[in-house]
Amino acid sequence: MTKSALQIARAAYQPKLPKALLGAVKVKEGEPTQSVADQEAIKQLFPNTYGMPLIQFEEGGVATEFPAINVGVILSGGQAPGGHNVISGLFDGIKKLNKDSKLFGFILGPGGLVDHNYIELTSDIIDEYRNTGGFDIIGSGRTKLEKVEQFEKGLEIIRELGIKALVIIGGDDSNTNACVLAEYYAAKNYGVQVIGCPKTIDGDLKNEMIETSFGFDTACKTYSEVIGNIERDCNSARKYWHFIKLMGRSASHIALECALQTQPNVCIVSEEVEAKDMSLDDVVTYIAQVVADRAAAGNNFGTVLIPEGLIEFIPAMKRLIAELNDFLAHNGEEFNAIERNKQREYIINHLSAENAAIYASLPEGVARQLSLDRDPHGNVQVSLIETEKLLSEMVATKLAAWKKEGKYVGKFAPQHHFFGYEGRCAAPSNFDADYCYSLGYTASVLIANGKTGYMSSVRNTTAPAAEWIAGGVPITMMMNMERRHGEMKPVIQKALVKLDGAPFKKFAANRETWAKETAYVYPGPIQYFGPSEVCDEPTKTLQLEQAK
Amino acid sequence: MTKSALQIARAAYQPKLPKALLGAVKVKEGEPTQSVADQEAIKQLFPNTYGMPLIQFEEGGVATEFPAINVGVILSGGQAPGGHNVISGLFDGIKKLNKDSKLFGFILGPGGLVDHNYIELTSDIIDEYRNTGGFDIIGSGRTKLEKVEQFEKGLEIIRELGIKALVIIGGDDSNTNACVLAEYYAAKNYGVQVIGCPKTIDGDLKNEMIETSFGFDTACKTYSEVIGNIERDCNSARKYWHFIKLMGRSASHIALECALQTQPNVCIVSEEVEAKDMSLDDVVTYIAQVVADRAAAGNNFGTVLIPEGLIEFIPAMKRLIAELNDFLAHNGEEFNAIERNKQREYIINHLSAENAAIYASLPEGVARQLSLDRDPHGNVQVSLIETEKLLSEMVATKLAAWKKEGKYVGKFAPQHHFFGYEGRCAAPSNFDADYCYSLGYTASVLIANGKTGYMSSVRNTTAPAAEWIAGGVPITMMMNMERRHGEMKPVIQKALVKLDGAPFKKFAANRETWAKETAYVYPGPIQYFGPSEVCDEPTKTLQLEQAK
Repeated sequence: MTKSALQIARAAYQPKLPKALLGAVKVKEGEPTQSVADQEAIKQLFPNTYGMPLIQFEEGGVATEFPAINVGVILSGGQAPGGHNVISGLFDGIKKLNKDSKLFGFILGPGGLVDHNYIELTSDIIDEYRNTGGFDIIGSGRTKLEKVEQFEKGLEIIRELGIKALVIIGGDDSNTNACVLAEYYAAKNYGVQVIGCPKTIDGDLKNEMIETSFGFDTACKTYSEVIGNIERDCNSARKYWHFIKLMGRSASHIALECALQTQPNVCIVSEEVEAKDMSLDDVVTYIAQVVADRAAAGNNFGTVLIPEGLIEFIPAMKRLIAELNDFLAHNGEEFNAIERNKQREYIINHLSAENAAIYASLPEGVARQLSLDRDPHGNVQVSLIETEKLLSEMVATKLAAWKKEGKYVGKFAPQHHFFGYEGRCAAPSNFDADYCYSLGYTASVLIANGKTGYMSSVRNTTAPAAEWIAGGVPITMMMNMERRHGEMKPVIQKALVKLDGAPFKKFAANRETWAKETAYVYPGPIQYFGPSEVCDEPTKTLQLEQAK
Repeated sequence: MTKSALQIARAAYQPKLPKALLGAVKVKEGEPTQSVADQEAIKQLFPNTYGMPLIQFEEGGVATEFPAINVGVILSGGQAPGGHNVISGLFDGIKKLNKDSKLFGFILGPGGLVDHNYIELTSDIIDEYRNTGGFDIIGSGRTKLEKVEQFEKGLEIIRELGIKALVIIGGDDSNTNACVLAEYYAAKNYGVQVIGCPKTIDGDLKNEMIETSFGFDTACKTYSEVIGNIERDCNSARKYWHFIKLMGRSASHIALECALQTQPNVCIVSEEVEAKDMSLDDVVTYIAQVVADRAAAGNNFGTVLIPEGLIEFIPAMKRLIAELNDFLAHNGEEFNAIERNKQREYIINHLSAENAAIYASLPEGVARQLSLDRDPHGNVQVSLIETEKLLSEMVATKLAAWKKEGKYVGKFAPQHHFFGYEGRCAAPSNFDADYCYSLGYTASVLIANGKTGYMSSVRNTTAPAAEWIAGGVPITMMMNMERRHGEMKPVIQKALVKLDGAPFKKFAANRETWAKETAYVYPGPIQYFGPSEVCDEPTKTLQLEQAK
């Protein structure tokens, strides 16, 4: 493998661990826990893994001999920077317990367990991947582990390899499934432990005990680097409005964090749009007003951040999409028989008045996408909608109308960007390198202590790594019951942006200034070797949330 | 101005200078020079600035008192990382000559000179911008300085401010115009010197005496960072083909350099496409074959780099566009009267057979763009064509045909990216920070020595900065005569990718391996504080070109 100079230099980095994990570890158990809601229902579903205490690891344990153990590891779902460090932390942890311990990696996600597709992760392999981005050491996948047949099929290979514990690195759904698996193996007395690790760049897997999911730090810093570069270009050329869509469908944490880092003229936060019941036209009007105000001050340029999931948070758009899905499910044949350039009119004539008006207001390309490009189940493919272009087109239309009314004088030339794949596999920042390594190492200590149904937890993460607090959180503690595909299911509560939380409040207090003034901040590329304030600062979101 | 931690830390960086410039400078003059071609014509057009000698600055000059001088500076054309360092090097240089020297910046490009729009760049302003990206210190613009009225209008403010010399920081066209201006002022005996500086991320302003244009290093490294991240994602998810278009319309240096840095599966080089007279179908077939070969090996993923200017290098596409422009110029009214969904057929029926066949093969969106979305002069707007989507759509069509013939088994899911604005205003790498500062400083020494019509030149740039060779190159030396808008004009010869040059040969020797194997390299973000091999390496292009 040809390596870049940075890859080679970075391979030598030794990630930092919480002080408590450096020597023999003492286990401190808290009180029994409860789920965040629906306690009775969750308790019934998880009789063996419900109510377990919080675990905290402290210094001063007694060193004991530990038998060699075999552990399996799975990467689940979308890539996030630092996954390789979780694995190397886990590897170093079980090797420290006993040098004959073995780590097996299941290939291409949970499917690897079911299909018995694995490799042994030996030290020469691990060393190739320390402090690198990506999930390519064993690959990832989106197979959901939720069926008994899968659990039993997985058990075959677990038995064959003598695996004592499985570590599942994933987002909220994967960790929910990890807990279902833990419960199943516990109920069956199979003697197989299951430990989860909180991964997702989206930042929506967090709560009182999990301060942040790994990868969020690096991904946001990478996006902020390029956003800052675009802002600087914007402020140099002074002639474009840049509409930048950012990955993250289920929550706006990434957009909000990038806004706090780069101070753009506009950032839309989906959760606010939903809470205020804003229409698409409300969002467009808000942006157009900022453009018009800046134009009045002679500034025909600016930067707008848009969260990928926006459309699905606009209540009126959700209603339109629901009616469209329903209508086309029943009238698909008739619709398809209509001449292409009359389809739009046909739909407008058949929708309810409110939805017809919204549909009619959409640019042609998006309207077509909503009615034509449907997934195999006949549903609108919201993820394919280029929200950044949709918004800029509608803003342009609105500005043209205002120009006629004399309410706007200026030029509006948009540019479009979408950042997602640029950050999911970036090499981890120092924060993520340390945090991930600590999460993996903590998982090994949870395993050594016989725990199952726990998520690896590292807290106090705004302090230096030595002071971080490592332990375990019962996954059931984070669960509530939610309707999924028409059925009530136990799931880990998703953390949306809180409108009364410190990060949003900081943004809200400043956005008017940022809209008017050109207050861009240019974070620049992630640094690994410089002064600590440049290399080691966690995200603004984490700092604001953890500030006392 | 709120600054990021990196901005603050980086402000303290002291750019390196060639050893010869540290003390008093001795001027070494070479033999008289000639233009690269059309010597007689160029000589006639530039009687006062033709044939001047090459200048080299050496150590060991005698320190002399120098009167205070006023200098004007202009940023011309697209942004490039390091522009602010050219200005700070120039500032420090003239201040070292005499602490009462003054620097005036003309606002928003050459237009600022004509419109008398300027600011004095004092040390507090300069200090805010050291080692930063962007051109926002005074802004840039695309006004072309080519008319006598502009020269005379500029002279008014030059006289008013007591300016002795003008430094124009720009690409090939701006430097050509700088030389025309130098010649004009020299012919008129106005006593105003004009010095150029070689700027452009595109890398197409280089020759024997100008090893590289500034900004190319940083821009390519920034693009390579995100390309590498995408490649790592690509190799982790193993399900997408990423089509990445890279800025640079007139040459493929950026795409080639990024390919050398990241080793993608495919990189198209426009100059090769033109030299081999490849058709669009040839390019599509080449990519599709790589996709099919990888699919046969079980790899339904990959990365393709595409230079922005590709379409304009495909001879058959050029002929199609020329015929379309001509045809629609004469039949525009009739065409516009035709029903929208019959326009395509109408065009196919009226073009020559060869062009009709190509037009018919294009995806609907692009075909529409070629016939409908025309600029105010009625011409096709080639720059608006999303080449990355055009190619991936045509590759998909070809693969579908091969699938029917049983020649291809696999899945093809493309993703699209365009990188340009992400890199033009990145903070300069150490190389660009040093190189730009040295170029600006060298300009001050050329001014001190009474030179005009010279371009600031810093060579031996693959050695440590102390060993760099600073001097001046007569701009006329780089010129030849070319047809522009129907007239023969003296212009600086554009440096296209040489197919017999070391960078292309290195790429060509490896591309088959890179296509088949997944040999991605992940350069990671630009580093400022780490080991020298991580922070200070110049581009692969420069290293290969300068290797003996």
